[in-house]
Amino acid sequence: MLYVIGLGLSDEKDITVKGLEAVRGCERVYLEAYTSILMVEKEKLEEFYGRPVITATRETVELESDEILRDADKVDVAFLVVGDPLGATTHTDLLLRAQNRGIPTQTIHNASIMTALGSSGLQMYNFGQAISLPFYTQTWTPDSWYDRLEENLRYGMHTLVLLDIKVREQSEENMARGRLVYEPPRFMNPATAFEQILLTEGKRHPSSEVEADMDDDDDVPVAAGPTLMDPEKTLAMSLSRIGTSTQKIISGTVAELARLTAEDYGAPLHSVVIVGKRLHPLEVEFAGRWCVGGESGDWWRVAKEVYGVERESFD
Amino acid sequence: MLYVIGLGLSDEKDITVKGLEAVRGCERVYLEAYTSILMVEKEKLEEFYGRPVITATRETVELESDEILRDADKVDVAFLVVGDPLGATTHTDLLLRAQNRGIPTQTIHNASIMTALGSSGLQMYNFGQAISLPFYTQTWTPDSWYDRLEENLRYGMHTLVLLDIKVREQSEENMARGRLVYEPPRFMNPATAFEQILLTEGKRHPSSEVEADMDDDDDVPVAAGPTLMDPEKTLAMSLSRIGTSTQKIISGTVAELARLTAEDYGAPLHSVVIVGKRLHPLEVEFAGRWCVGGESGDWWRVAKEVYGVERESFD
Repeated sequence: MLYVIGLGLSDEKDITVKGLEAVRGCERVYLEAYTSILMVEKEKLEEFYGRPVITATRETVELESDEILRDADKVDVAFLVVGDPLGATTHTDLLLRAQNRGIPTQTIHNASIMTALGSSGLQMYNFGQAISLPFYTQTWTPDSWYDRLEENLRYGMHTLVLLDIKVREQSEENMARGRLVYEPPRFMNPATAFEQILLTEGKRHPSSEVEADMDDDDDVPVAAGPTLMDPEKTLAMSLSRIGTSTQKIISGTVAELARLTAEDYGAPLHSVVIVGKRLHPLEVEFAGRWCVGGESGDWWRVAKEVYGVERESFD
Repeated sequence: MLYVIGLGLSDEKDITVKGLEAVRGCERVYLEAYTSILMVEKEKLEEFYGRPVITATRETVELESDEILRDADKVDVAFLVVGDPLGATTHTDLLLRAQNRGIPTQTIHNASIMTALGSSGLQMYNFGQAISLPFYTQTWTPDSWYDRLEENLRYGMHTLVLLDIKVREQSEENMARGRLVYEPPRFMNPATAFEQILLTEGKRHPSSEVEADMDDDDDVPVAAGPTLMDPEKTLAMSLSRIGTSTQKIISGTVAELARLTAEDYGAPLHSVVIVGKRLHPLEVEFAGRWCVGGESGDWWRVAKEVYGVERESFD
């Protein structure tokens, strides 16, 4: 039996009782490398579980899948991931391979960022498609995510922006030399995210108010019509270390959040939310508790004047 | 301290280790009534936790919140919910009340149906807004959900359809007589869901192929233009008892799934997914494993001919 087990969002105690029983009963337990970087160290997990854990690097999917699934038809094997197992195709891949070999599988669910998104105070019903924001480079600024953001905004829906994570990057030099040496992991900070968001906003809807690094060779469609995401008139949130004891949420306008520094947001893991017009008074109230500028922050003013939503008066 | 703790999707062992420690350390532990009906009986939870649990009926939010939060600034109190705490406004309400009274709060996350949606094999990124399908009556068939479904379909996004649950219904007679007697809980079955979906489809896009109970007095806008949800050409899925040992997933066209009976789908809890055009080969392959008709089912044909997606050839 192959168990794919979600470890939840924060530390070794976020595993479910069911997951812990499976981990203790398995012959071999693999920990996805990204997971081990993100959460507690492998050693702390081994201590808590009372058994050894093997880091799976996922260097080459086929080779490693073979090893992970070795004898899984005879013994129990567990594969641990941060959050919930089925948020990404990587695990679907492993499950499909197991099933193709006739190996029984069981998925043990846990909280993921999609669940924790509820921590924002924004209603899950009002979220449209999630988007992924990749790390931009000097020569590569892929912005198809912006089209999806616009689609959501057009219908008034909120957008969860998942921020890029680079776990096993090789410098160009090492790659050229075939040296399996890796850069330290990079988890995008909301400060970088908002920088990139404003950059793309400036390219898609150039105006004198938004400074953008406009490269004349850019093959970027300059959109007709006004922007749906005016940084001064669009509400946003950052969600940091959700589900951990140092969880931090900040709300405000895109412009306000873009002025904060990487240190204001702190250590990984982060996500960003762009707030849509279907905003509800209870959402304004709940999410507003963490707004830039407190009671006099732009959050309340923009919610009222731009989104047309009064805050919910409460108890 | 008020702890709001998610119990996950299935049974007493889906609580996290962290949640279990909190439950054992609290002065009082409340279990939301809906949760106690849905998951294991209160007695089984009490046995597993080794302590008593109080069912919170949520009869009147204010009265009960007062009782739940009584002395929570001096002692620890836990409030247990099925799935994850922050999927619905009810719990936001309790948290806001606690915070307004200066009572510290901690949320312990767990899997919810939003997470378990990944079990479908469909990519979370491709889901648009979730919709709620309420129980229709003879005189009331609210279908604003259909507009949201169309919005998603227009952009090719999948739609998670959450099915109505009635936990504390009173018959009209009992309501009139002020008798606090409740009907047994009702959890919508996908058979009913598809019946209602086809009913509304028939009203919005009347055609000779779809039988609909057309009431001439209906104030239903008959849409111009072709439907985005032709039952024969739209793929769908049912997700039943996700995260439990009797989990069942069925895929196929809306028409095929609508022909199945309540017994085919089985016991609660159920959700439905309407599949959008952004379907990916890996999704076709993974979700197709549970399709009506197996290898010769309509799922594969419609995926190819209508969605234009070939199945992923695998290992």
